[in-house]
Amino acid sequence: MTARIDDIVCPVPATPDQVLLAHGGGGRMMRRLIEELIVPALGDDPLLRPLHDGAVVTVEGTRLAFTTDSYVVRPLIFPGGDIAQLAVNGTVNDLAMCGARPLVLSIGLIVEEGLPMDLLRRLMESLGRAAAAAGVRIVTGDTKVVDRGKGDGLFINTAGVGVVVAPHPVEPAGVRPGDAVLLSGDIGRHGVAIMASRDGLAFETTIESDCAPLAEPVLRLLEAGVEVHCLRDLTRGGLGAALVEIAKTAGRRIEVEESAIPVRPDVQAACELLGLEPLYVANEGRFVAFVAPGEAERALSLLRSHPLGEQAARIGEVGGEGTDVVMTGPLGTARVIDLPSGEQLPRIC
Amino acid sequence: MTARIDDIVCPVPATPDQVLLAHGGGGRMMRRLIEELIVPALGDDPLLRPLHDGAVVTVEGTRLAFTTDSYVVRPLIFPGGDIAQLAVNGTVNDLAMCGARPLVLSIGLIVEEGLPMDLLRRLMESLGRAAAAAGVRIVTGDTKVVDRGKGDGLFINTAGVGVVVAPHPVEPAGVRPGDAVLLSGDIGRHGVAIMASRDGLAFETTIESDCAPLAEPVLRLLEAGVEVHCLRDLTRGGLGAALVEIAKTAGRRIEVEESAIPVRPDVQAACELLGLEPLYVANEGRFVAFVAPGEAERALSLLRSHPLGEQAARIGEVGGEGTDVVMTGPLGTARVIDLPSGEQLPRIC
Repeated sequence: MTARIDDIVCPVPATPDQVLLAHGGGGRMMRRLIEELIVPALGDDPLLRPLHDGAVVTVEGTRLAFTTDSYVVRPLIFPGGDIAQLAVNGTVNDLAMCGARPLVLSIGLIVEEGLPMDLLRRLMESLGRAAAAAGVRIVTGDTKVVDRGKGDGLFINTAGVGVVVAPHPVEPAGVRPGDAVLLSGDIGRHGVAIMASRDGLAFETTIESDCAPLAEPVLRLLEAGVEVHCLRDLTRGGLGAALVEIAKTAGRRIEVEESAIPVRPDVQAACELLGLEPLYVANEGRFVAFVAPGEAERALSLLRSHPLGEQAARIGEVGGEGTDVVMTGPLGTARVIDLPSGEQLPRIC
Repeated sequence: MTARIDDIVCPVPATPDQVLLAHGGGGRMMRRLIEELIVPALGDDPLLRPLHDGAVVTVEGTRLAFTTDSYVVRPLIFPGGDIAQLAVNGTVNDLAMCGARPLVLSIGLIVEEGLPMDLLRRLMESLGRAAAAAGVRIVTGDTKVVDRGKGDGLFINTAGVGVVVAPHPVEPAGVRPGDAVLLSGDIGRHGVAIMASRDGLAFETTIESDCAPLAEPVLRLLEAGVEVHCLRDLTRGGLGAALVEIAKTAGRRIEVEESAIPVRPDVQAACELLGLEPLYVANEGRFVAFVAPGEAERALSLLRSHPLGEQAARIGEVGGEGTDVVMTGPLGTARVIDLPSGEQLPRIC
C-alpha cells in the first residue's frame, strides 16, 4: 500500500501493537483493523467481506437480513434518547439498510455490578417502547454481570433478523454511474447531542439526538418499486465516512454538493464551538439512498411524505470509475473527502 | 410470594436497589431479575416468556431458531479453550437446544483500549476455527472500543440463526410424565478449569474445559426421528439449575439418581478442594435430553455413537405434576435440589 499524506501526518502508527480508542471510531483505523486483522482471521467469508450494515442469507428460499451491533454510548441517557432506544433503532436501521423489513431482535445485556436497579428498569422499559414503535419483537436475550470497574454501567448488544423485500441486492457494489444520491434529512444532531451532554454544555436550544427507526421510510421506497441500489445509515463517521466507504467498495466516484446537505443552524454553531465537522458527526436517524437516475424525483416525494424524511434532498450523483468522494463547496471549489483517521467522538453509539 | 428458608438465610436482599454480581450467575437471583424486571419491562412477548435457550420464529413458512449470548469469561484463555471458542460453541449449542441446525452467526466485539493486537488476532483466529469446526458461517459483525478501565480486555457477543429440524417444539413445556432424562456425558469440567486457572491452582492432571459444539450429537437424535421433548445445555448453574428451570417451567416433578451422573474423579477432587458442588458447576459441552420413554435406549445408542456422547447416561425420569427436582443419593436418601441463590463462580462464560 502506498503511503498517503494523512498516514504520514497521523500521530498514530499504522499498525499499533495495542487496540486504541480510535480503532472504534468508524474511521480509517477501524476499517483497517476490520479488513486487515479481523476479517482475514475469521476466515474471510464472502458474506462478511462487503462490510455492509448486515448480511443477506437465503434460508430455504427466503432471503433473510441478519445484523448485529453493540452499544457502548456514554452517557446512558442523553437529550433525545438513551442507550436502549439506540440499541433498538440502530439494529432496526441496519436491517432496513439491507432492503429488509425488520422482524425480531435479540438483546444481550452486559451490566456492571452496582448499576442502580431503577435505571436498569427505566432502560428496559425504553427498550420495550422503542421495539413497539419500530414494529419489531424482542424474542430472546441474555444477561451478564461484570465486576465493578470492569464495565461502564450498561452495554447492550442487539442482533436482528428481517425479511428482504428489495428485489435486487441493496449494497455498495450495486451502485451505478448516474445514480442519484439522496439524503433523508439534516445531519449532525446525534453526535452534537451526546458531546454537549457529556461536556455539560448548554446551548440556547437543547439539541436532541435524531435517533429514530428508519424502516418505514425505507419500506415506502421499496414497496413503491423504486429502483434502490444502495442504502446506508449515517452512524459512526457520519455522512462523510458513509460516502467514502461506498465509493471505495463500489469502485465509483461520488460527487456531492455541500450546499445541498441540510445542517440546522444550531447544530452548525455547536459544531463550530466544539471543533467538529458536521460531515463526520454521527446520526442515528438519517440515511443515504442511491437510486436509479430516473427515479430520483419519485423517491424524494415518497421520502418527504414521511415525517422522518420531510427534509430529504438530492445531494449528488455517482460518476465513473474511481474511489474519490468529491464535494463542491458553495463557491464552486471542489475537495476530496476522506475517512477521518480515528474518530471525532469516542463512544458515540 | 411466601418466604422460603433460603430467602431468609440468604445474606442478599430479595430486591436489592443495585445490580449485584450474583444476578449474573444463573441462579435464583438471576431468574428473578429476568422474570420480574426485564421481561415485564420489555413488554412480555410470549416468545420471550419461556426463558428457553433461544426463540423459534416462523418466517414465510420456515421455522427459524434465533438466540444470543454475551461472553465475559475471565481469563480470556483457559485450559481447553478461550473466550472466542466459547462464544461460537455457546451460541451453536443454544440453537441446537431449540432442535435446530445452526447456520449463521453474528459477532459483536467490545474491546478495551490497550488489548494487545496479537491477542486480538489470536482470538479472532480461534473464533474462525471454532466456527469452521461447528459448521457455521460468521456473516456479520460489529466492533466497539471502550476506554481503558471501562471494560475487561474483550467481551464477545454472538447471535445465531438456525433452521428447526425437530417436528415438534423442543422446549421445557414439552416435557411429559414418564420421559427419560438423558445426560450426554460427565459434568463439572468447564467451571473447574476456569476456577483453577484463575486461582493459579495446579492439580496432578490439568483439567480442561469440555467446551464443544453440540449440534452434531443433537442432530443425530433428531434426524433419526427420536421423539425429543426438551433439550438444555448445562452452562451457568450447571445440571442442577437446568433441571430446576425445566421442572418449574414444565410444572413436572423430575427424579434423578445421583450415582448415574458421571463426574470424573479428578473433577470431584478439585470440586472438594474448591468448595464447589459439581451439580451446579458450569459445562460448555454437555446437555440433557428429555425423550419419550420408549425411545431412551435408542437415543442413548445414538448419543454414544458420537465422540461427544460416549459417556451418555440415563439419569432419571419425569414424574407427575409438581416443580421439584428430587435427587436420590447412593444410600437411597432423597433430597430436593433447588437453584443456587447467586452463583458459585462469577464470569464463568
